[in-house]
Amino acid sequence: MHDDSLIDGVAADADWLNERALQFGDGLFETVAVVRGEPCLWDAHMARFAEGCRRLHLPKPDFGLLEEEAGLLGAGRAQAVLKIYWTAGRSARGYRRPTPLQPRRMLHVSDWPYAGQAGAWVLRQCLHRLGENPALAQIKHLNRLDQVIARSEWDDPTIQEGIMLGQDGRVVCGTLSNLFVQKGNTLVTPSLAGAGIAGVVRGLALAIARTNGEQVHEDVISVQQLSDADALYLTNSLIGVVRVAGFGTRRYDLDFAEHPLMTETRRRCHQPGREGIDNG
Amino acid sequence: MHDDSLIDGVAADADWLNERALQFGDGLFETVAVVRGEPCLWDAHMARFAEGCRRLHLPKPDFGLLEEEAGLLGAGRAQAVLKIYWTAGRSARGYRRPTPLQPRRMLHVSDWPYAGQAGAWVLRQCLHRLGENPALAQIKHLNRLDQVIARSEWDDPTIQEGIMLGQDGRVVCGTLSNLFVQKGNTLVTPSLAGAGIAGVVRGLALAIARTNGEQVHEDVISVQQLSDADALYLTNSLIGVVRVAGFGTRRYDLDFAEHPLMTETRRRCHQPGREGIDNG
Repeated sequence: MHDDSLIDGVAADADWLNERALQFGDGLFETVAVVRGEPCLWDAHMARFAEGCRRLHLPKPDFGLLEEEAGLLGAGRAQAVLKIYWTAGRSARGYRRPTPLQPRRMLHVSDWPYAGQAGAWVLRQCLHRLGENPALAQIKHLNRLDQVIARSEWDDPTIQEGIMLGQDGRVVCGTLSNLFVQKGNTLVTPSLAGAGIAGVVRGLALAIARTNGEQVHEDVISVQQLSDADALYLTNSLIGVVRVAGFGTRRYDLDFAEHPLMTETRRRCHQPGREGIDNG
Repeated sequence: MHDDSLIDGVAADADWLNERALQFGDGLFETVAVVRGEPCLWDAHMARFAEGCRRLHLPKPDFGLLEEEAGLLGAGRAQAVLKIYWTAGRSARGYRRPTPLQPRRMLHVSDWPYAGQAGAWVLRQCLHRLGENPALAQIKHLNRLDQVIARSEWDDPTIQEGIMLGQDGRVVCGTLSNLFVQKGNTLVTPSLAGAGIAGVVRGLALAIARTNGEQVHEDVISVQQLSDADALYLTNSLIGVVRVAGFGTRRYDLDFAEHPLMTETRRRCHQPGREGIDNG
């Protein structure tokens, strides 16, 4: 007999129910800042896509085609958000991928979510801890329940972000950002060996540091180190680099001199085009 | 400006791109055997749904309505597969769930995938290991990349299932099944404290054992114990209880007397209706 579906009680031709991104989260995504019609840090986003494909055993997308389509969707937009999916495509029920696999690309552009530059953010500590799996760490796959559950823990609009811990209680990242911790002149960012996403702005900062011969340590960071820090910074493709005003009861002195690497990273992450890691 | 989308190069009204199951895997599913028009082990499937809702901070579905719709889709089918999704519904980009949350239910019925009773299965050991997160273990959420990657490791049609290990190398489950290990008269099944799915047929076996005063240990199991076993069994909603013919180079004696608990579980798991755990 043929398949039948009911979606919220309505008989449906549910072709999209066969999408493996929906069935299993079988795919990858990127969230790209678009400035003056052009995607920012394009090469870095595509490098992460390529690594994600390798890890998930997916073929790589046609990067030139993606860039062309990103340009089409970005055209005429001063500042926008481009979300790109690369999924394992459609199949019947079951974990096994079909032969031949026909991956799908989906690009979606929407309005910029922040009014101007984001100000300093206030953080909380999330109760939900990240799962640990080196095979899925760092890449931007579509299995994001850890982030969703953590983000569902608070509604208070005066708190912008939550810090997430690994299973062992070490600090890993924010729900939607990476973290840099400044103590004196030294800058540390959590290691992402077992969990977390290797953000492109985090990568830009590390690349600039390498080029300048500066040291940014990737290390295990405790919650106590956040309280003891002189300054905290959050990074992602959309917010760029944002300073942290508070974490729990701790308030940070926003007049404490910003680390020059963070200033330089902020300056460069929203320049349209490929710039960033390669020219770092 | 309004949102724009391109799906495989075609401008699309991509309402379904807003589904959080696709964006993040934000939801749950159940795969239910339908026999003579009726779902099997219904109460056990719904109990797992309820526990999943609790863990993901989702409201519970209307179980009566789901049962009614399952009956509508199952009607007239001698044997079929019912897949039920319960998702966080639609939202714009971003991990934060919308207020109010409007979960969606999607039911999809398809043909029975096995011709008659599944025979004895041959297993391999998967290279990809399961992520560890007690907060997401046991429930049937939509973040299933671990299973997808593991299942993509082999094409050999003479191998039916792959054994998955946790990060520490202990045996947890198959890609789509739970495992029971028999040595003499004793039966052991892997503990699912940190990873794996608490299958309803596994639950039925444990419930029958409790009722009969039998012992089935949930424990840490090594790969070596699989080779040393007298018999292995796989369970899930569709296959019921299946014996294992081989694992790697090890071949099992299929004439070795089957544990009575496995026989009883097989007998009861495909009876239409609520029977199972409650009447165990």
